[in-house]
Amino acid sequence: MRISTRSQVDPFIVMDVMQAASAAEAAGRHIIHMEVGQPGTGAPTGATAALAKAMDDGALGYTVALGLPALRARIAQMYGEWYNVDLDPNRVVITSGSSGGFILAFTALFDTGDKVGIGAPGYPSYRQILRALALNPVDLPTSPDNRYQPVPADFAGMDLKGLLVASPGNPTGTMLDHPSMKALIEATQGQGASFVSDEIYHGIEYQKKAVTALEITDDAYVINSFSKYFSMTGWRVGWMVVPEDHVRVVERIAQNMFICAPHASQVAALAAMDCDGELQANMDVYRANRTLMIDGLRAAGFTSFAPPDGAFYVYADVSGITDDSRVLARDILDKAGVAVTPGLDFDPIRGHQTLRFSYARSTADIAEGIARFKAYMAAR
Amino acid sequence: MRISTRSQVDPFIVMDVMQAASAAEAAGRHIIHMEVGQPGTGAPTGATAALAKAMDDGALGYTVALGLPALRARIAQMYGEWYNVDLDPNRVVITSGSSGGFILAFTALFDTGDKVGIGAPGYPSYRQILRALALNPVDLPTSPDNRYQPVPADFAGMDLKGLLVASPGNPTGTMLDHPSMKALIEATQGQGASFVSDEIYHGIEYQKKAVTALEITDDAYVINSFSKYFSMTGWRVGWMVVPEDHVRVVERIAQNMFICAPHASQVAALAAMDCDGELQANMDVYRANRTLMIDGLRAAGFTSFAPPDGAFYVYADVSGITDDSRVLARDILDKAGVAVTPGLDFDPIRGHQTLRFSYARSTADIAEGIARFKAYMAAR
Repeated sequence: MRISTRSQVDPFIVMDVMQAASAAEAAGRHIIHMEVGQPGTGAPTGATAALAKAMDDGALGYTVALGLPALRARIAQMYGEWYNVDLDPNRVVITSGSSGGFILAFTALFDTGDKVGIGAPGYPSYRQILRALALNPVDLPTSPDNRYQPVPADFAGMDLKGLLVASPGNPTGTMLDHPSMKALIEATQGQGASFVSDEIYHGIEYQKKAVTALEITDDAYVINSFSKYFSMTGWRVGWMVVPEDHVRVVERIAQNMFICAPHASQVAALAAMDCDGELQANMDVYRANRTLMIDGLRAAGFTSFAPPDGAFYVYADVSGITDDSRVLARDILDKAGVAVTPGLDFDPIRGHQTLRFSYARSTADIAEGIARFKAYMAAR
Repeated sequence: MRISTRSQVDPFIVMDVMQAASAAEAAGRHIIHMEVGQPGTGAPTGATAALAKAMDDGALGYTVALGLPALRARIAQMYGEWYNVDLDPNRVVITSGSSGGFILAFTALFDTGDKVGIGAPGYPSYRQILRALALNPVDLPTSPDNRYQPVPADFAGMDLKGLLVASPGNPTGTMLDHPSMKALIEATQGQGASFVSDEIYHGIEYQKKAVTALEITDDAYVINSFSKYFSMTGWRVGWMVVPEDHVRVVERIAQNMFICAPHASQVAALAAMDCDGELQANMDVYRANRTLMIDGLRAAGFTSFAPPDGAFYVYADVSGITDDSRVLARDILDKAGVAVTPGLDFDPIRGHQTLRFSYARSTADIAEGIARFKAYMAAR
């Protein structure tokens, strides 16, 4: 059978690292995992307890396409608590992770061939999902001077139909402040394009609260998830906030493409929103890890990076060391026993001179990894 | 913001029935639900027990994109047990319900504008998912003489890039036997088109075992789910079997578009596959319901339908009673207090003269519904 053109998406380069790391572990080596993009913690215990009870109580059949009304209401309430934004629960759509949100958003907003701007470096699946939907991702190379976030000049006159931003960003952890976000929204709207804000790392912030696009406009799609702050990656549940006049359209697409997000995960997610104590304990770990990582990388000789405002990554320029981040990542794995991600997944052009270090796992792992980096760099 | 053309999918007409039924219940009326397409039962108790244990044991983070290896292996084993087909577990892809399977299959196989044949009547979301992906669904009106299943003559010379069949079908419950399935596969391959077999109702059969496309060819996509026989609708977990040389392509799409199917649901699904006793008890209910429904509908005066081979629906021609199935469904709800589905969702052309009756719920509900039909038809 024929394979479609649209399905010719790139493989993740990090997969090579992960396979090599698995092989090393299978051979008995101890590997520190700084390549992973997910918390080492599971769902909060309050979330799993709520699900255990719900499994005893009922059938957990399909929910309505937009999701459990109680969960939509609780998320709307959170916008009041976190951002002082008054949000109508009817605008909240429960999705199958942020992945489901992207599929719904891109389908609702864009037609075949439409150009959608994405910042480079950025989450690699943006590009691949857009391509799989026969849309046209346009990489916008961002400047280190702008802390790797796009600015209006990056897409002036480009005839984009949409702009997708992420703050805090992956792989950089940098954030857009209120004026920067506002400038991007105004420039996007000025081009007649749609604004999509990926806010999946909100809640994992170190200096100040991240800004939601909803503080600036109702005319945007905001995508979020329970995967990161709420520590529920494998549960595949997230949400999207859409303009009021898009709710019915998104509902119909969701009914047909997803039926609903996993019911069990929705139940767990609702309970997770009242597990602040446990989630803030996770944040204490990320905070300690971040400090260790920033200081340790610098001490080891990785000095060219912006300290992350949020998320759990450091994205470092390693151009002083290599022109091939893939070779460097492999060498670090082989010699130091630490798995890291070459930048090429995030930035196909400039990523050959960057690495992403994740500090999502335990503090002990980060400390051990830093010690290994120091020995590795000293021996180069 | 602009709404895309591809997102202009049709609403489900049954939603009007469901909303009217909800309103009637809110007003204190007792409604029998024959409009629903899901079991009244939940996941098997062995499945929920396994998940409860897994939640205590670990974090349930992302699985690999193709799904838990143990679940893929267990599904491959089932093809041996159910069909005597020797299946390589590497060809099994765990999906986010059959919905996820359709998105992956259509993306892997088809490009913008490609024509994909689907039998009418059929599951309405086939058409809508294809449209949302900028593909071109082609309704193939099937004949009651062929028990509403397509035959090669229905798409001869149509330049299809794909054919999608469902056996047992929804809304009809009719099956393709081995020679009929083989003829369709050969005719499809003869056109250079891809064959996709929706086997979601396998396991819910009354006279003989349903035929899987894999008994005839390895060169097909087979889509299935834990929603129906395994009674796990809200868990959003299913699977797809693809040709060996498509696995890597589908894996890459799945990594980007879904990351993985819900981990908790995969754990529950694996355990569900060893819950035969409970699942066969569900089957006993469907069998009793089917007999009640066939006899009862005939006695009430709905006489024009093929007894279902599988699934839990009866699709009846009501052209002797009405030219507007939507009005008839509403009248049955208002006067008899039974919610049924107008055929228009399944067949936009001929569905104005058909109704779908589901017997997925309790036997007591079916008996009460039949009594109400008799009174309703007697009073017409």
